Amino acid sequence: MAANRQIKLSAYLVGTGMHVASWKHPNAQRSASISVDYYKALAQTAERGKFDIAFIADSLAINEDSHPNILNRFEPVTLITALAGATSKIGVVATASTSYIEPFNLARSLLSVDQISKGRAGWNIVTTRDLSGSTARNFGAQDHLEHGFRYKRAEEFVEVVTGLWDSWEDDAFVQDKESGVFFHPDKMHRLNHRGEFFSVEGPLNIARSPQGYPVLVQAGTSESGQQFAAKRAEVIFSIKYSKQEAREFYDTFKSKVASFGRSPDEVVILQGIFPVIGRTQEEADEKYRQLESYISEETGFSFLKDYFPGVDFAGLTLESRAADAGLDRLQLDKSDYRKHQPVIAGENPTLREVYSLLTGSFSREDWVGTPEKIADTLEEWFTERAADGFMLMAPLLPDGLHDFVEEVVPLLQQRGLFRTEYAGDTLREHLGLRVPENRYAREEVSRP
Amino acid sequence: MAANRQIKLSAYLVGTGMHVASWKHPNAQRSASISVDYYKALAQTAERGKFDIAFIADSLAINEDSHPNILNRFEPVTLITALAGATSKIGVVATASTSYIEPFNLARSLLSVDQISKGRAGWNIVTTRDLSGSTARNFGAQDHLEHGFRYKRAEEFVEVVTGLWDSWEDDAFVQDKESGVFFHPDKMHRLNHRGEFFSVEGPLNIARSPQGYPVLVQAGTSESGQQFAAKRAEVIFSIKYSKQEAREFYDTFKSKVASFGRSPDEVVILQGIFPVIGRTQEEADEKYRQLESYISEETGFSFLKDYFPGVDFAGLTLESRAADAGLDRLQLDKSDYRKHQPVIAGENPTLREVYSLLTGSFSREDWVGTPEKIADTLEEWFTERAADGFMLMAPLLPDGLHDFVEEVVPLLQQRGLFRTEYAGDTLREHLGLRVPENRYAREEVSRP
Repeated sequence: MAANRQIKLSAYLVGTGMHVASWKHPNAQRSASISVDYYKALAQTAERGKFDIAFIADSLAINEDSHPNILNRFEPVTLITALAGATSKIGVVATASTSYIEPFNLARSLLSVDQISKGRAGWNIVTTRDLSGSTARNFGAQDHLEHGFRYKRAEEFVEVVTGLWDSWEDDAFVQDKESGVFFHPDKMHRLNHRGEFFSVEGPLNIARSPQGYPVLVQAGTSESGQQFAAKRAEVIFSIKYSKQEAREFYDTFKSKVASFGRSPDEVVILQGIFPVIGRTQEEADEKYRQLESYISEETGFSFLKDYFPGVDFAGLTLESRAADAGLDRLQLDKSDYRKHQPVIAGENPTLREVYSLLTGSFSREDWVGTPEKIADTLEEWFTERAADGFMLMAPLLPDGLHDFVEEVVPLLQQRGLFRTEYAGDTLREHLGLRVPENRYAREEVSRP
Repeated sequence: MAANRQIKLSAYLVGTGMHVASWKHPNAQRSASISVDYYKALAQTAERGKFDIAFIADSLAINEDSHPNILNRFEPVTLITALAGATSKIGVVATASTSYIEPFNLARSLLSVDQISKGRAGWNIVTTRDLSGSTARNFGAQDHLEHGFRYKRAEEFVEVVTGLWDSWEDDAFVQDKESGVFFHPDKMHRLNHRGEFFSVEGPLNIARSPQGYPVLVQAGTSESGQQFAAKRAEVIFSIKYSKQEAREFYDTFKSKVASFGRSPDEVVILQGIFPVIGRTQEEADEKYRQLESYISEETGFSFLKDYFPGVDFAGLTLESRAADAGLDRLQLDKSDYRKHQPVIAGENPTLREVYSLLTGSFSREDWVGTPEKIADTLEEWFTERAADGFMLMAPLLPDGLHDFVEEVVPLLQQRGLFRTEYAGDTLREHLGLRVPENRYAREEVSRP
């Protein structure tokens, strides 16, 4: 992989974009989150840009304060099935939780879309953080699942799913009309799994796809999440605000992968980026400022007061600084807060920026600028091994994706950092990942 | 509905066709059951024939004796999503069981495909018969669910799913960029369901589709199945071997529907048909004979011995008669056997025919013949109210569907019994079914 190492690109497709107020932008499409034609056009734009992946996130509960993009949206597995039908090369990745579905059902629908897409599917494995318990209450449980428990269950869940995916060896279906032999019964395998959380007999009623099975994607940031990802994931997706942090994460994570006996090249690390692109720096700054201006004082403070229950915001506006509210010295025991705390303490941003940061709308300085500046930053992160590729989390869609494909991708291509044409047909081929061997085929080889 | 009453047509799409040995036919496509291009072509053929529905059946467990069409096949919800993308008018109906999935997940993925298809989806509600317990063992249970229990659970399941589908009133999403109001919180509804089997809070994170929600289809043949269907189903699918039986079923069922306070026109009754079409009667007979010839003695007797454990088949061939094995006098306590018993006792068929009958491959005399003969039979059944329409269960695919669309549909159209063009865009429009009101919108209307 080192010789021709190439940047990998994934497009995070979500309604009007990552910015919390993106839906108010004049270019934001009405009902974007629930328009299949809109999503198909996004995926086609990403495919025109030779992206590896069109990525669909998910959540399983909403409330009155949820982001407009997630109140009313498609279920990811059905959505990527639709996207697969509107494209021919790009990989399609759906998020699905291991906490609220039967492994047999998920194994089946994911392998089904992998077959439908002819080997272009991926599964973003999440365990569903659910602090308020609202997800649990949609599934008959009273309380959210505790973190460590969720990951234990997730490990077994993935064992079962990947086990079911091996139910049929690749040459099982002879389909000989003359002899009347449709399949070799000895190439059909029952999993007979009996574990702590699941008991699943099998076989699965669908065979492996042209790429074996869907690519396993993970975004765990906690310690147990990272252990799980290092053991299992083939693509890992992370968000770091500085190149230094990203490099440290890259090193640590690749070592963890190696500690499980895997080659570090078996895992592709994507870093989330939030580009706002202008022909000049001023134009880009103005675009970002415009997006930020859509955040109303009411929405901003309603969120901040909820997030920081003890803090007094009296007399402040969204233009006040973090330090004015004492946020620079605040310690909070929330994992996503710990991630942002260095920025809040170190850069003393405005409360508007704090809000953007915490809602995932924040775009740090590096990602606001000209195509050249963005391309330079990506090249740096990539060559210095802060990332193997990037998850494009455009603050505004479709504009952010369109700008990136038209303006940044050609620069990366000119520099020899990114493909000008797809070399293969499956997602594993795009990502340089091997087709996993069928566990039973392996067994046969090793028989004396 | 009575004035312009029109035949409804649904195409049952399953691999190489309903006949147990159809895969051995020279025109049967290799790997048909797992080729998405093949299924898309079938759905497009049905749409060319102005069919109401492309129908996908399902099962959740397989074993060494399973029909080749079901060993390795797509999961139905993902498959109909793919079919929706390859068509623009025809309805797409997926089978999904109420016994082995969380209602929140199913409500979500079905409404998602209903949105993706712009109001063309339907849900064939099954409870999954599972005598051997093999399905239960794929889902962590040791025993199959008892019949009455399954239907009790199914009733509550459908309550929850349809309740979740009403989470958002149609005018909930104002999306006013100026005022910053994205939605009306009072038009978002939590179900807060607490029942015997399920406890589900809501709201669902997807809004109703252009047709409200997916059409509810059911095929219950047992007494509790029929009660359930009469209360809930909008399309009911049945298989009767004689017009007389079908008429009796039609009458009884429409009365049952009325007994639940529903109009009999709110339910469309489809009868399963198994046509084998030839330019002459002789050609059709020869086609059917050819299909039957693919049943091997070994396969046939292996099934029959399993199905009739006490019966001695020694010295018999598949051309022997039912009475030779004493099947004409046999009583068996199996619901599918009771359905076929009158044919076996009354017509003394060959063992090959008994086998075809029990495996769903049987095509009674009425359905083997010229296009005119088939059209006559359909017209008779339709006008004499043995059916509102038909489920085309072609013994051989794609031939059987192709022949029907090319040869029989034009005759029905010439007779004014079937549409020559789709009048609407949604499945409910095709079927003449109303868009169900949102329960919360109704409540508002009734407020003083």
